[in-house]
Amino acid sequence: MRIAQVAPLTEAVPPKFYGGTERVVAYLTDALVELGHEVTLFASGDSATKATLAPIWPRALRLDPSVHDFFAPIFMELETVARRAREFDVIHAHLDYFGYPLLRRLGVPSVTTLHGRLDLPELQPLYGLYGDIPVVSISDSQRAPLPQANYVATIHHGLPKGLLEKRGGEGGYLAFLGRISPEKAPDAAIRIAARSGLALKLAAKVDRVDQGYFGSRIEPLLSQSHVEFVGEIGEHQKSDFLGEAAALLFPIAWPEPFGLVMIEAMACGTPVIAFENGSVPEVLEHGVTGFIVRNEDEAVEAVAEIRSLDRNRIRAEFERRFTARQMANNYVALYRRLAEAQGTKIPP
Amino acid sequence: MRIAQVAPLTEAVPPKFYGGTERVVAYLTDALVELGHEVTLFASGDSATKATLAPIWPRALRLDPSVHDFFAPIFMELETVARRAREFDVIHAHLDYFGYPLLRRLGVPSVTTLHGRLDLPELQPLYGLYGDIPVVSISDSQRAPLPQANYVATIHHGLPKGLLEKRGGEGGYLAFLGRISPEKAPDAAIRIAARSGLALKLAAKVDRVDQGYFGSRIEPLLSQSHVEFVGEIGEHQKSDFLGEAAALLFPIAWPEPFGLVMIEAMACGTPVIAFENGSVPEVLEHGVTGFIVRNEDEAVEAVAEIRSLDRNRIRAEFERRFTARQMANNYVALYRRLAEAQGTKIPP
Repeated sequence: MRIAQVAPLTEAVPPKFYGGTERVVAYLTDALVELGHEVTLFASGDSATKATLAPIWPRALRLDPSVHDFFAPIFMELETVARRAREFDVIHAHLDYFGYPLLRRLGVPSVTTLHGRLDLPELQPLYGLYGDIPVVSISDSQRAPLPQANYVATIHHGLPKGLLEKRGGEGGYLAFLGRISPEKAPDAAIRIAARSGLALKLAAKVDRVDQGYFGSRIEPLLSQSHVEFVGEIGEHQKSDFLGEAAALLFPIAWPEPFGLVMIEAMACGTPVIAFENGSVPEVLEHGVTGFIVRNEDEAVEAVAEIRSLDRNRIRAEFERRFTARQMANNYVALYRRLAEAQGTKIPP
Repeated sequence: MRIAQVAPLTEAVPPKFYGGTERVVAYLTDALVELGHEVTLFASGDSATKATLAPIWPRALRLDPSVHDFFAPIFMELETVARRAREFDVIHAHLDYFGYPLLRRLGVPSVTTLHGRLDLPELQPLYGLYGDIPVVSISDSQRAPLPQANYVATIHHGLPKGLLEKRGGEGGYLAFLGRISPEKAPDAAIRIAARSGLALKLAAKVDRVDQGYFGSRIEPLLSQSHVEFVGEIGEHQKSDFLGEAAALLFPIAWPEPFGLVMIEAMACGTPVIAFENGSVPEVLEHGVTGFIVRNEDEAVEAVAEIRSLDRNRIRAEFERRFTARQMANNYVALYRRLAEAQGTKIPP
């Protein structure tokens, strides 16, 4: 198939640092190419891809100090995609609702993956107008606040099979990996580790909006002897950081739409102790790939039982359910379904 | 003609407080109705208009604390306009480039008035893609940084003839009216008034982004005995505030795209002493409606000569060039030209 992937421009595809959406787009795009499809990736010019790159802006917007208005490049992207629409069998956008008014009028099958939370009040009236636009949820639970959207599939994220390596958890510490923000609850992780008598390593970035929270609520906790704050880590450090941990703590305080770090841990053979929220029950299997808990007491109990889980089995579950190839196969099946519904003829 | 006016949603049309774009849209819309046209105004639901209101969001976004994402309502507006496009002979948008990818694909003549500055670097590549989109500049000088856009007219703003009243300048003070921001240079106004030995009244709002500038650079100057800071004023106070002033000081430090306050002063019969920048030489006639100066020395000299100008003549120049009816007539001529170019048949 001739597939257009339309990525955000905030980060490169894949991102140089943090950036969940653009990472998933990168994994999907490369996996589609590996499956033999002809893929064009609309993205920032510093992206690296196995597909044909259609660069919209020279650099990722977040790293380009010359850009004052982040929306102008997005509107260049929309126009560029629209002009080339007929070159594709399907257009797959990752621009949230920004593509909707245009995509529906191009006469080419299109679909949008929703990467974020759907509980913003503005989305209720918005989807009153866009209730027919085909969208993909990244977990079933993500749909809850916005049932009226036209979900054509839930497709879980996946990682390239060889991206991260299985390790044995020899470090014996608990790991926290993500943004420092109230909804990720690093303070809960610090308390759980303290009560478990284990060290906690936090690998985390602090966004500008979260610096107040970090300074007032988290920084004072970092001086405790069991806590090590290692800052932001890159992809190449994740196998070590996650794989040598006894478990990943994921004590989220919000309805996480997917939670990529859970499958990163699984790829390293590392069990996940996660609060029952959002996508967690869809991603984790309680007692197999980790423990799903409801509070800090249960999390402490789970830490005590963590050695009962089989790290080989956890890695095997990752390979069974969460590789980029599986994600790509799921999307290809969806693309075909959308093209057939629209009566478009596509090559096998 | 059947005309769609597509307004921003940040402020009501007209705005409850400050807001240049939405005010001009309000004046234009009402004047088009008065000329006998069938006008539909897409705007926030708290707008007040002689046209048929198509409310997109219940309240102006800036005054609606329930709104987190200002763009979702705009994308509701785009879709709503697109669905109704065939009801109109022309669609006139005031959404900057947000309408471009969609408007060009609706098969209905459309035009966008550019209300802001055009020197942002992102606009250069943006207009590489959108160089054929018909746009209206609000002054000729506004075009300078972006000559490659498809300007189909310059149409100056206008005010309803009866909105403001001519007064005699009996207050004898100098007036400053606008935002407190470095480009409006209220500090220059304070210095010019001091050197002229006249009182200065500043009627100004302070945006959140300008609060640092206000606190550090302007607030310390307000304790001088010749300065009176009166805060933000409403429409009904302008005839008094401007009309009782000996002159309006407009010592701008940026290429003002239009400068509505200049024609507000003229409507009150009040001369304007303005720095030669942006639209100023197009709006003012030196020695007739005010003085165009290059620095503070020349501004002080101009204040000394201000009584040589005829306030009746200034009001007459306003009525000759800057009423909302003239603005509306100019737009109607443009709409007809666009419709003819597209081969659309429209009623006379």
